[in-house]
Amino acid sequence: MAQNIEGIAASSGIAIAKAYELKTPDLSFERSNIDDPASEITRLDKALEISKQELEKIKAHTLKEIGEEHAEIFSAHLLVLSDPELIGPMQDKINEERINAEAALDEVATMFVEMFKAMDNEYMRERAADIQDVTKRVMSHLLGVTFPDPALIDEQVVVIAEDLTPSDTAQLNREFVKGFATDIGGRTSHSAIMARSLEIPAVVGTKNITSSVQKNDLIIVDGLDGNIIINPSDDEIQTYKQKQADFAKKQQEWAKLKDEPSFTKDGEQVELAANIGTPDDVEGVLNNGGEGVGLYRTEFLYMGKSELPSEDEQFDAYKAVLEKMDGKPVVVRTLDVGGDKEISYLDLPKELNPFLGYRAIRFCLENEHVFRPQLRALLRASAYGNLKIMFPMIATIEEFRQAKALLIEEKESLKNDGIEVSDDIEIGIMVEIPSTAVIAKQFAKEVDFFSIGTNDLIQYTMAADRMNEQVSYLYQPYNPAILNLINTVIEAAHAEDKWVGMCGEMAGDSIAIPLLVGLGLDEFSMSATSILPARTQLLNLSKKELVKAKDQFLAMSTSEEVVAFVKEIME
Amino acid sequence: MAQNIEGIAASSGIAIAKAYELKTPDLSFERSNIDDPASEITRLDKALEISKQELEKIKAHTLKEIGEEHAEIFSAHLLVLSDPELIGPMQDKINEERINAEAALDEVATMFVEMFKAMDNEYMRERAADIQDVTKRVMSHLLGVTFPDPALIDEQVVVIAEDLTPSDTAQLNREFVKGFATDIGGRTSHSAIMARSLEIPAVVGTKNITSSVQKNDLIIVDGLDGNIIINPSDDEIQTYKQKQADFAKKQQEWAKLKDEPSFTKDGEQVELAANIGTPDDVEGVLNNGGEGVGLYRTEFLYMGKSELPSEDEQFDAYKAVLEKMDGKPVVVRTLDVGGDKEISYLDLPKELNPFLGYRAIRFCLENEHVFRPQLRALLRASAYGNLKIMFPMIATIEEFRQAKALLIEEKESLKNDGIEVSDDIEIGIMVEIPSTAVIAKQFAKEVDFFSIGTNDLIQYTMAADRMNEQVSYLYQPYNPAILNLINTVIEAAHAEDKWVGMCGEMAGDSIAIPLLVGLGLDEFSMSATSILPARTQLLNLSKKELVKAKDQFLAMSTSEEVVAFVKEIME
Repeated sequence: MAQNIEGIAASSGIAIAKAYELKTPDLSFERSNIDDPASEITRLDKALEISKQELEKIKAHTLKEIGEEHAEIFSAHLLVLSDPELIGPMQDKINEERINAEAALDEVATMFVEMFKAMDNEYMRERAADIQDVTKRVMSHLLGVTFPDPALIDEQVVVIAEDLTPSDTAQLNREFVKGFATDIGGRTSHSAIMARSLEIPAVVGTKNITSSVQKNDLIIVDGLDGNIIINPSDDEIQTYKQKQADFAKKQQEWAKLKDEPSFTKDGEQVELAANIGTPDDVEGVLNNGGEGVGLYRTEFLYMGKSELPSEDEQFDAYKAVLEKMDGKPVVVRTLDVGGDKEISYLDLPKELNPFLGYRAIRFCLENEHVFRPQLRALLRASAYGNLKIMFPMIATIEEFRQAKALLIEEKESLKNDGIEVSDDIEIGIMVEIPSTAVIAKQFAKEVDFFSIGTNDLIQYTMAADRMNEQVSYLYQPYNPAILNLINTVIEAAHAEDKWVGMCGEMAGDSIAIPLLVGLGLDEFSMSATSILPARTQLLNLSKKELVKAKDQFLAMSTSEEVVAFVKEIME
Repeated sequence: MAQNIEGIAASSGIAIAKAYELKTPDLSFERSNIDDPASEITRLDKALEISKQELEKIKAHTLKEIGEEHAEIFSAHLLVLSDPELIGPMQDKINEERINAEAALDEVATMFVEMFKAMDNEYMRERAADIQDVTKRVMSHLLGVTFPDPALIDEQVVVIAEDLTPSDTAQLNREFVKGFATDIGGRTSHSAIMARSLEIPAVVGTKNITSSVQKNDLIIVDGLDGNIIINPSDDEIQTYKQKQADFAKKQQEWAKLKDEPSFTKDGEQVELAANIGTPDDVEGVLNNGGEGVGLYRTEFLYMGKSELPSEDEQFDAYKAVLEKMDGKPVVVRTLDVGGDKEISYLDLPKELNPFLGYRAIRFCLENEHVFRPQLRALLRASAYGNLKIMFPMIATIEEFRQAKALLIEEKESLKNDGIEVSDDIEIGIMVEIPSTAVIAKQFAKEVDFFSIGTNDLIQYTMAADRMNEQVSYLYQPYNPAILNLINTVIEAAHAEDKWVGMCGEMAGDSIAIPLLVGLGLDEFSMSATSILPARTQLLNLSKKELVKAKDQFLAMSTSEEVVAFVKEIME
């Protein structure tokens, strides 16, 4: 019997394949006394050895398929497996207490995990997480149950999971993973953004997919409409194969626009750019016809490491992106840490409300030893392309002035040292805090451009954590309040001849695009795979008519009314 | 040597008295073996008995001075002391393990605390807190150290503490506690609001007052300017006695305006109302010349209990306030739980960002069994005075419509049952979420009034948790973004002939008042003790001139500029 499950369409496309459940198996065991400690230690050693072999394999695979940074996670795991301070006490326990290997492994690991967790140090807490991860793997071998390794998938599957962590997604092999579906998450959750970046069809936020799917079930993931079918009928398979083919055809149509500029039906040009996280992402931008990079998130340079990236390391990354983009504009956002983005060695405070806390520019302005090297790296890279710099989480004009002053100081210092720096770097800000949108008029006199970060702007304007399921209904991109704030920003910028971009998820959304065209947005920055559909959609929109409709939709009362209005004019 | 410490002026007035340090004493002990378990058990019993006597005394005192609700905390503590399931194992431990009473007390208490804490139930977690509290008291008697009991203070003191909890402040006796000073907190923290309500001079957020003060130091608390002097010179004492006398004189001047209406110099009238938490607070409102209650926080009815207050219990409280206010307007805010306000029996979820979470109207709309009885109690009480109802944390028009529909349903149902309900109840909303301020125009068509809640509005607009010290510099009431949002709300309301109040701390702030008069605010609701100073200040302000200045200060870039501007025009 086919079963239908609805979720949130997170990444376009249709996948039809066998389910692969990504979940930790039952690792419960009985503590027991043993008679032969020597053979028990041999059992433990074997489990450790198999785990080591697996991790080596995954590490090599990750290095080849994904990159050095992600592979380092597994180096850390391998270190744990060879740590005599951890393994020694396990062997001692078996010898002295005559208990089984499972109990010895668990008790020693738990002790270390508790100890590390109790330390007031993010780095040690991460080591605790490493030990927990590795212990699970070793335990699974002691118990003879299968431990799931997404990196080692070697047949076509749809991955089913409660949620996907960054390290899970890092391991997914696009050749075999045809789609995925998760219980939790929304369009802006990490797993959704990764799915779009990997161009894997995905449906998230299904609430109960993991409990509905059995091993070897056939799954259809419809990332276009947010549907999942478990064990579809032959008819359904045919229908979706057709939908898959139609989508492929559409993609071919879109591909024709790859090297075209972006115009509305009535000949008004806008810029369609992409959001990226690493230099490797540039390939996808160019393949999808991106006219620029509207948001380069620099956090990845700082993540999964034990210390700050050096100025040179950063310079290399920025230069690589600028060179690959070959003169096209690249907007780099300076470090946005804090909130939900933790970086171990920066030792950020634990906060009651991290989204309203010490993050991004707030942190950088008080930690110049972190901020200045990034600014220097950016300035040095500016000689290699069309660089624009923007500061995140600006709430007051003073913050912008301070950040800009530091940038100018570093520019002068580099020039004095005879280092080449571009003289045409535009300096802008993210508009993601309501205060900044409200007085955009005042800001517009001082910045070169705005980039509206809708993910955060919506959550602050509605006072609703977008990660919190219980208030997620308030994450309303089409709410007239959001549209009015966007309008305020664009009007303020245009009055001063400045341009406005948008780099939140909203910029690539087909309901939002007509509204944004009507409001006069200049640059739309989105997941690379959304660019060609957006360029196609623009060809059907009349800017003149949408501008005329602006006063009408800005005066509406609810998100629902706005959506109905867009659907009506799009017919 | 006198020492000066600066902090935040949290409650007006000058206090000069001996320091009373409110802190938990050192309760460390050595675990040791004992020879005579019987006499050790006697030691434990004695410590339990003294603790019981103290708690009875405090309970009686609290009941008399403060009220039944607060006294119940101590009933819970007394139950712990008589619980055989807790005391029995302590005695057994002493008998069987032959350890000292301190160790037995600590080990058994810790076991229960851990057990209760581990339960996924807020009620049990509160029991854990009770046991911890009581154990400290018993331990102090075993160790022969003094345990501080603010309720039992019987000489004039200035209370010095890291922070004051609601249960601490509930115990303060105004007769003897002349002032207080804390390390942490700001103008809107719980302890600051309590200080103003108790009319006790207070300075908060001094960072290090507890580590600077020695027992018996003489302390001057200057709640007017936010200064503290430890061990002042005779000259300083004279100076501050003079300042105290001047302030008393000023208060007498203010008192003359008690029964006067509130006018500006040029004869424009506004309403000065007060914020209250319980019916007992009404006395202070009337004594301070309040023309109404602009915010009745109903949370206190729900706090410190083990179950929901009944409809009748609520009705009695609302009726009491309305009757005492004798026809003057009373704006009641419906339940605002969540965020930093936990209520054990409601079992609210733990959240990553509680300020952006499931709270207030979001919770009430999904929990009609909580919301409807409050609405019924309010409707029934409406027959006894001039009631206005407002809903907190409204982010969308749908939420307002839903809440209003429930209210109307209950009204019809009461009327059908022949129960009297006023037909003139105004229904309004708190404007504390940016989205609502931005589209106030749309809201103004549907609500009867707005009340701007600046404490939350500022924190969401600036995306900065006002409780988080590291970003507290962003809590900027005078930021032009805040002023522009307030302006949007007032203009929208007046266009529809609706009135606008403000019930955040900003409404009673002497820098903000001229700005708010210029923006056309109709009702200012503040701590009762701020009303007469505000009425005095108004007499020196020309509304006409301030309205003329409006465009000028709304176009400013920074909070600093605005403050300088106000200071200039006030000269």
